[in-house]
Amino acid sequence: MDFKTLIREIPDFPQPGILFRDITPLLADGEAYQKAINKLAVFAKEKGAELIVGPEARGYVVGAPLAYALTAGFVPVRKKGKLPGQTLAVQYGLEYGNDVLEIHVDAIQPGQRVVVADDLLATGGTMSATIDLVKKLGGNVVGGAFLIELMELGGRNKLGDLDVFTLVQY
Amino acid sequence: MDFKTLIREIPDFPQPGILFRDITPLLADGEAYQKAINKLAVFAKEKGAELIVGPEARGYVVGAPLAYALTAGFVPVRKKGKLPGQTLAVQYGLEYGNDVLEIHVDAIQPGQRVVVADDLLATGGTMSATIDLVKKLGGNVVGGAFLIELMELGGRNKLGDLDVFTLVQY
Repeated sequence: MDFKTLIREIPDFPQPGILFRDITPLLADGEAYQKAINKLAVFAKEKGAELIVGPEARGYVVGAPLAYALTAGFVPVRKKGKLPGQTLAVQYGLEYGNDVLEIHVDAIQPGQRVVVADDLLATGGTMSATIDLVKKLGGNVVGGAFLIELMELGGRNKLGDLDVFTLVQY
Repeated sequence: MDFKTLIREIPDFPQPGILFRDITPLLADGEAYQKAINKLAVFAKEKGAELIVGPEARGYVVGAPLAYALTAGFVPVRKKGKLPGQTLAVQYGLEYGNDVLEIHVDAIQPGQRVVVADDLLATGGTMSATIDLVKKLGGNVVGGAFLIELMELGGRNKLGDLDVFTLVQY
């Protein structure tokens, strides 16, 4: 299946000069969406994932069904002030500014095998912040799974020697 | 399975006097999470769902795996300015204030059978706005699926004669 035909290019979003890769046509196609998640699931299963961790909000449309497919737990990483329990926070730079991400302090048991997931691997800022949170809670980050990777932004290098699987590359 | 044991009560979040029902322990338990989604999937399949529509962000942790389980498409409803394509917007009152929700104008084909999904049915404000958007695009809203329903807030009545399934009620 050529997943790229279901990823729409939208120029100048969210800022002038940015070519946004819109996955909503892929999500809206039930068979393609399921096949895409299944490919990520093969990778995550090989890595022995017990938990999937993803940042809001688009990370949830990848991470949540990935967890479901694996019978794994899902841990949401959220923007500041959104999680109701006690949290650990990290500041990070993303493609278009700065922000804070949080995780519940009791979300991960030390040593649990975690695959981090998001729709897009661009500069890697969001994902390295997410990984930072997981590691600080003692999680064992065994892989990263993404629908799209923007190769020229070099996000993969920012994740060190993490084993990364991406469905499509640009 | 007693799902309520996996839903944590957090007082005074996000505002004093609100008892927040936190689903993150349920999400973190892979078997429980999968079983919960499967129960929603039985309902959505009976309703003949072709598309699942859910509001950000917690609606995605229910709607996205539900779509995956059914081999149905998933359509994200987002806060203002987050969707990259042409959108239809609606203002709505929610439990703790006012906000705007948007949907891509080309997200739904007229007549498509849609089940709307979210983690929580409280006052029904977010969900009636979501249903409003789906109907304006010609979608046929055939059901609503939720993990939690707060009965005393009467959200179900706000959704008219919609067939509603909720996993647990308080």
